[in-house]
Amino acid sequence: MLAYRMTAWGAPPRTVEAPDPAPGPGETLIRVAGCGLCRSDLTMRHVPEAAGAALGWRMPFTLGHEIAGWVASTGEPVALVSPASCGACRHCLRGQDSGCPHGLTGRGYGRDGGLADHVLVDDERALLPLGDLDPRHAGPLTDAGATAMHAVRRALPRVTPGGTAVVIGAGGLGAFAVQFLRILTAATVVAVDPSPARRDHALSIGAHHATPASGTRDADVVLDFVGTDETITAGVAAVRTGGAYGLIGSAGGRLGKPWFSALPRDGEVFTFQGSSIADAQDVIGLARAGLIHNQVEEFAFGEIEQAYARLAAGSLTGRAVIVL
Amino acid sequence: MLAYRMTAWGAPPRTVEAPDPAPGPGETLIRVAGCGLCRSDLTMRHVPEAAGAALGWRMPFTLGHEIAGWVASTGEPVALVSPASCGACRHCLRGQDSGCPHGLTGRGYGRDGGLADHVLVDDERALLPLGDLDPRHAGPLTDAGATAMHAVRRALPRVTPGGTAVVIGAGGLGAFAVQFLRILTAATVVAVDPSPARRDHALSIGAHHATPASGTRDADVVLDFVGTDETITAGVAAVRTGGAYGLIGSAGGRLGKPWFSALPRDGEVFTFQGSSIADAQDVIGLARAGLIHNQVEEFAFGEIEQAYARLAAGSLTGRAVIVL
Amino acid sequence: MLAYRMTAWGAPPRTVEAPDPAPGPGETLIRVAGCGLCRSDLTMRHVPEAAGAALGWRMPFTLGHEIAGWVASTGEPVALVSPASCGACRHCLRGQDSGCPHGLTGRGYGRDGGLADHVLVDDERALLPLGDLDPRHAGPLTDAGATAMHAVRRALPRVTPGGTAVVIGAGGLGAFAVQFLRILTAATVVAVDPSPARRDHALSIGAHHATPASGTRDADVVLDFVGTDETITAGVAAVRTGGAYGLIGSAGGRLGKPWFSALPRDGEVFTFQGSSIADAQDVIGLARAGLIHNQVEEFAFGEIEQAYARLAAGSLTGRAVIVL
Amino acid sequence: MLAYRMTAWGAPPRTVEAPDPAPGPGETLIRVAGCGLCRSDLTMRHVPEAAGAALGWRMPFTLGHEIAGWVASTGEPVALVSPASCGACRHCLRGQDSGCPHGLTGRGYGRDGGLADHVLVDDERALLPLGDLDPRHAGPLTDAGATAMHAVRRALPRVTPGGTAVVIGAGGLGAFAVQFLRILTAATVVAVDPSPARRDHALSIGAHHATPASGTRDADVVLDFVGTDETITAGVAAVRTGGAYGLIGSAGGRLGKPWFSALPRDGEVFTFQGSSIADAQDVIGLARAGLIHNQVEEFAFGEIEQAYARLAAGSLTGRAVIVL
Repeated sequence: MLAYRMTAWGAPPRTVEAPDPAPGPGETLIRVAGCGLCRSDLTMRHVPEAAGAALGWRMPFTLGHEIAGWVASTGEPVALVSPASCGACRHCLRGQDSGCPHGLTGRGYGRDGGLADHVLVDDERALLPLGDLDPRHAGPLTDAGATAMHAVRRALPRVTPGGTAVVIGAGGLGAFAVQFLRILTAATVVAVDPSPARRDHALSIGAHHATPASGTRDADVVLDFVGTDETITAGVAAVRTGGAYGLIGSAGGRLGKPWFSALPRDGEVFTFQGSSIADAQDVIGLARAGLIHNQVEEFAFGEIEQAYARLAAGSLTGRAVIVL
Repeated sequence: MLAYRMTAWGAPPRTVEAPDPAPGPGETLIRVAGCGLCRSDLTMRHVPEAAGAALGWRMPFTLGHEIAGWVASTGEPVALVSPASCGACRHCLRGQDSGCPHGLTGRGYGRDGGLADHVLVDDERALLPLGDLDPRHAGPLTDAGATAMHAVRRALPRVTPGGTAVVIGAGGLGAFAVQFLRILTAATVVAVDPSPARRDHALSIGAHHATPASGTRDADVVLDFVGTDETITAGVAAVRTGGAYGLIGSAGGRLGKPWFSALPRDGEVFTFQGSSIADAQDVIGLARAGLIHNQVEEFAFGEIEQAYARLAAGSLTGRAVIVL
Repeated sequence: MLAYRMTAWGAPPRTVEAPDPAPGPGETLIRVAGCGLCRSDLTMRHVPEAAGAALGWRMPFTLGHEIAGWVASTGEPVALVSPASCGACRHCLRGQDSGCPHGLTGRGYGRDGGLADHVLVDDERALLPLGDLDPRHAGPLTDAGATAMHAVRRALPRVTPGGTAVVIGAGGLGAFAVQFLRILTAATVVAVDPSPARRDHALSIGAHHATPASGTRDADVVLDFVGTDETITAGVAAVRTGGAYGLIGSAGGRLGKPWFSALPRDGEVFTFQGSSIADAQDVIGLARAGLIHNQVEEFAFGEIEQAYARLAAGSLTGRAVIVL
Repeated sequence: MLAYRMTAWGAPPRTVEAPDPAPGPGETLIRVAGCGLCRSDLTMRHVPEAAGAALGWRMPFTLGHEIAGWVASTGEPVALVSPASCGACRHCLRGQDSGCPHGLTGRGYGRDGGLADHVLVDDERALLPLGDLDPRHAGPLTDAGATAMHAVRRALPRVTPGGTAVVIGAGGLGAFAVQFLRILTAATVVAVDPSPARRDHALSIGAHHATPASGTRDADVVLDFVGTDETITAGVAAVRTGGAYGLIGSAGGRLGKPWFSALPRDGEVFTFQGSSIADAQDVIGLARAGLIHNQVEEFAFGEIEQAYARLAAGSLTGRAVIVL
């Protein structure tokens, strides 16, 4: 079969012929319907061989970690859990598998992912039944959606009826967060984004307000999907006493101010990477109930390069999915 | 009566004659037994008049906010809640009175405090029955003790049997935290302090280990009672995935590193000021049950200046209390 | 002024002349706009003198505990917290004032309530600003609404996206619970009620389904606003592993089955009476945001007896409010 | 090898020759060091064939589900998680594997258990490293210990410093609960048991008080390891407003009183069966830290029948373990 793969350390991925995968004991073969593209895919060519080798990454491997399709043997539509986890460590056994130390190697990052006709799954925990959802589009629910859910779930206990929840960055993940906050809280939801198009989109999917910059000082919660010095500084300052600031964006920012006076008093600051399987289940649950809008832009397998170029340029209006 | 008072903005406190207080409706007169000295007392002379006036502070006022004594009319021994709070705002009504916006003016900071024979209480929420505890020594339980309890209570859900809890700064507040962690968890408690005497004291009150610097990277929780750049950086780095870093020390430090990679993953960073009444109740409960050691150093009313000098020099071996 | 009052133990209430109240120190005079009628009012005549006296009830007293109006001195529209609480006990200081032991005497039960032109409030915690809400209708939010919120708040952590929440009894309180569950969760909300009119009403305010009897065995949560043997037995049986059954209805039912096998495994059973002030604040917050429908039926002061008769007969279609 | 096995539906277990197990792919062979005996073993002969077959039980199977020993290939000492769970359902993925619907068939109940020289493990989640603990005695930690931990963990948030925690039934599980409550709370721990020997034992392992019947009405929490009508009625009545009653004992009791007035107001009633892997990890953690006493009575493999007879007669002073 054809696959879009990393073939050598430091080299860009490309479409090559790859062997058809055959399931061994305990493995499930998935016929891929669609695979979402993620900004992290663009960084794979920059992973040094030493780092990849230390993680046990095997070259070549097929890219793509936002995967949905059908169980080959039964035809059941499923999405695949995006983050890897072991299922047996202290974190996993407490439902906190987003903290699993074995999460750095998975489908699409070190192992064969979803930008190919078929992919193998070796862990039944990774299969998320889709019911009536379209598997061509469901892939982004498992990563962009689940990560946003993880953030919202952490913030929920601090959101009050009549309070304010701020989402900084209304792109792929932030757009999910806006929707989850509308569905699961009675707070006023404010989307903050410099892009007028993204602000319009945020309003169309439920944000009460959308602004280039939030001036509030009284937010129950701020979820920052950008993570620059500027958004961290503004985000932390926007949180009320007893509120929460959650950092999801990996832009590498920091807070230059003294913590004791700058952090939300009696509140909470948190960050994380990825999501737990329970988050993905909840997102699929909301999608199956028809409660969320998962905006995607379809591309054919032959258009992968164009799609990544659009992603890199920030000119997509929804999550890019490669339809197989 | 004699009282140790702030008499003018910008001037040091001094012992002066003050009127005997007479309780009005809803007020309770307390005969002071002992009053603890706090580092924050030393900063009162630096409060600008504009700032004090904005808070509604009235000059003169008697210093001292770690107060215990007897209800004058009944002789019942009580300690007085140290932080002020209104009892009626959203924070107070949810048991989160440490976040009350009305907490910046109270007994000993803007109103008459405990360094005098008598003090008035206008809120029955502030009276903490002491039972058999000695009111000459109980004052520090309501501030140093309650603040440490607030930190420990926030951290408790993340402390695991067999895990590690680190207390940075084993002085007055930290010594309470060491004890609370021993009583309320099954974690290994590590005290970090540059002072050999404080390390010895920490070991004597229950710390499993005491070191000048913690090298751990796997702490369930780090409570930082210092709060410099150094302790914040070391403290945050010491927290495991899923753990908590709590900042209590007001030294004004910050973290120079990018948050996304430096903060504990799937964990929590928090700070606060003061404590809630429930914290003080819990501390008194532990003390009445004989479970904690409240190390104090007694001084007479005439020795206040010497006691503050010892406090400023860091040469006390316990919390200083002025016995009246 | 005229007031609808209990005038003697064991005697029915009646409209009599009562003195105009004058506020003392710390008291606020309220001009009543509307007062809701509650089923518990009907039981007052059955309280034995010994029981009432033990609670410190003073005869005569004006009925009515679902009160809203205007602060007489300022004109600000407010609702009054319905349950009484002391503000200073362990329960109140932890935000759990619904458990306050001093809650058995309050406005409308032992003290003068709202079925009169004016009523006095001696606790600023009891004043709930209404903003643009109509004070003639807001009274029921503080009791029927707040009690339903208390139940929903307890249940929330166990409600999952795509799960099921069952409300048994879709009358005044249950109708609020249906709405709160729709606003604050992504669960399917099922109203169970024998009355076709109430089922229609439940559907009109957001229930996904309404049935005479729930056949589910997999509910995340069941809130039982009836509380007979039948509803308790059916309600407990409907809860999934890990779910919750909350009993709010005071019909005096019990469960005849062995607890170990009948109670929800790894779940929770709870009951309570009344609500906390935070619950009432949240309900007012939802109402001010326009998110809930508070169905009332207006009656004039001269129609109190007819209104109570309609309440007793179960022929009201909304909460009865007496407009003053 | 010899094994103590169920050999036919309805027949008592007996010692027979069984095939030496050989590990397949993904399986781990354990050399058994010791296996605890549990009251539930005595009921296996009463399981109807239809019920067993419906659960997928295979006859014959070796009894014994409190197992510890050494990994045959490495010699590492391990205990084996006692309850079965799938690791992939909604419950397991949230750390609530005690609610897993696949828990009714496991080692010692439907599959080969630990009363034999060797046993197979097909799930790495089931391996609990013992460190320096003696594997001959560690088996009961995984069942009696972990079940008691599950109860205590549920109750912890409601236990206050200076409050009271009541353990009804100070046998194997209750004795663990007494110890966990002492280690993890600052409450007064009361053991209730009709047996003077058990009361003495409870006092020796940390109970503050031991009585034949608890007269308290103000317990933060009551954990009932008996579960008769009498203990349920007394236990529920002993809980304070806001407290918890946990039912662990399977004696089949019920509460004859109306729930609305009898259940703890604003509190919690819960029950469950088994425990989660996280509970077992915590118990092993406490044991490895030397914080708990695991009282066992050793028997040789040839004494199994006598040991079960002692268990049935209630004449053991600790958990019986068969040493292999």
